[in-house]
Amino acid sequence: MARELYELAGADPARRFSPYCWRSRMALAHKGLEAACIPWRFTDSQAIAFSGQDKVPVLVDGDRVVSDSWAIAEYLEERYPEAPSLFRGARQPVRFIAAWADTVLNAQLVRMIVSDIPQWLGEGQQAYFRASREARFGMGLEQVTQGRESRLPEFRTALQPMRVLLWENPFLGGGSPDYADYAVFGGFQWARCVSSLSLLEATDPVHGWRERMLDLFGGLARDVPHCGR
Amino acid sequence: MARELYELAGADPARRFSPYCWRSRMALAHKGLEAACIPWRFTDSQAIAFSGQDKVPVLVDGDRVVSDSWAIAEYLEERYPEAPSLFRGARQPVRFIAAWADTVLNAQLVRMIVSDIPQWLGEGQQAYFRASREARFGMGLEQVTQGRESRLPEFRTALQPMRVLLWENPFLGGGSPDYADYAVFGGFQWARCVSSLSLLEATDPVHGWRERMLDLFGGLARDVPHCGR
Repeated sequence: MARELYELAGADPARRFSPYCWRSRMALAHKGLEAACIPWRFTDSQAIAFSGQDKVPVLVDGDRVVSDSWAIAEYLEERYPEAPSLFRGARQPVRFIAAWADTVLNAQLVRMIVSDIPQWLGEGQQAYFRASREARFGMGLEQVTQGRESRLPEFRTALQPMRVLLWENPFLGGGSPDYADYAVFGGFQWARCVSSLSLLEATDPVHGWRERMLDLFGGLARDVPHCGR
Repeated sequence: MARELYELAGADPARRFSPYCWRSRMALAHKGLEAACIPWRFTDSQAIAFSGQDKVPVLVDGDRVVSDSWAIAEYLEERYPEAPSLFRGARQPVRFIAAWADTVLNAQLVRMIVSDIPQWLGEGQQAYFRASREARFGMGLEQVTQGRESRLPEFRTALQPMRVLLWENPFLGGGSPDYADYAVFGGFQWARCVSSLSLLEATDPVHGWRERMLDLFGGLARDVPHCGR
């Protein structure tokens, strides 16, 4: 098969935990496209040097190479216009939702789960991950996540715009999911794959939505190594 | 003219300062529709009792009565399909942006500007406004906004999803504005009409966007009584 998606993986190649790779994986499934998973680790910059940058996801589709989850979504939409649309109209507001997921959702999540990540990495990866992230945060990873339960109420409050939509429809996209859903779901799946922290109350409409997202495409996101509830 | 928009006003009927009424006023202009402004004050519930609820905006369009800014936008889109679209495709993600404006932007703004509002109200209105809002916040209005300058960095950080779009396009809607812009702009215009607090740095892309919004429709939002910078 000529289509490949380079996805961040842990020591177990099946433990894929990048919020951005999950966006692309779900977008591919939405389009009905298969793509071999090429497990990639943080220090493998050589393996994706052909893409001209050093981050995953990287999609190789025949002779096309696309990196960056948003660029991949736009590429898939243009390359496969006959498949179900990822955007269904205006692309800009979905871009806003993806940016919200990046700067609010994932920014809050990382401070609650980053110390859970090293256990899933190979030994060389652990040292790299800890050093680079501790430099970014200016403190130990365990210090970053300390008292995280006390930050859950703030996190749950920040999800309110999602609820406004989910009170009326099963998905952010409406009656069925679209890229708005995948952009946000990536963060929740990231957390689920590395951390047992219970992010959502069972009565939260966002909880029900996450369950529906896990059921999509024959349980594509549910049936992977994870530790979330 | 058979079209009327009931808009929240201060003692000066020209000082209109509801974030939600501004959404509807801009949406009407986007559709190229005129509507007489009926100034409305907080305690005038009798004046809009015909709408079956007690909040503005209320749009009267011939024999149709519509309240709630989102419902008004949807109504205008359906009633005037030949006029420029407010949504340009999928409505759901724009709903997310409006919900973000409600629950994040406006929720942070009110805590920075609420004590500036009473000065613009008539005497009877002042007492009502102060009592009802102080009950809501459980403290005096001046206490709510105390130290507000120290909250500006957090407020500006929360605008990051807007910047991601505005780095690439002049409006949230892309090359030209749509309801996503009006939904967010309402909050900024609210602040501008009642408070001299300087919310945005001049170098912020959001500042440039706000200027463009003020220029729309012949300066519709710029040329009103205001005190913002």
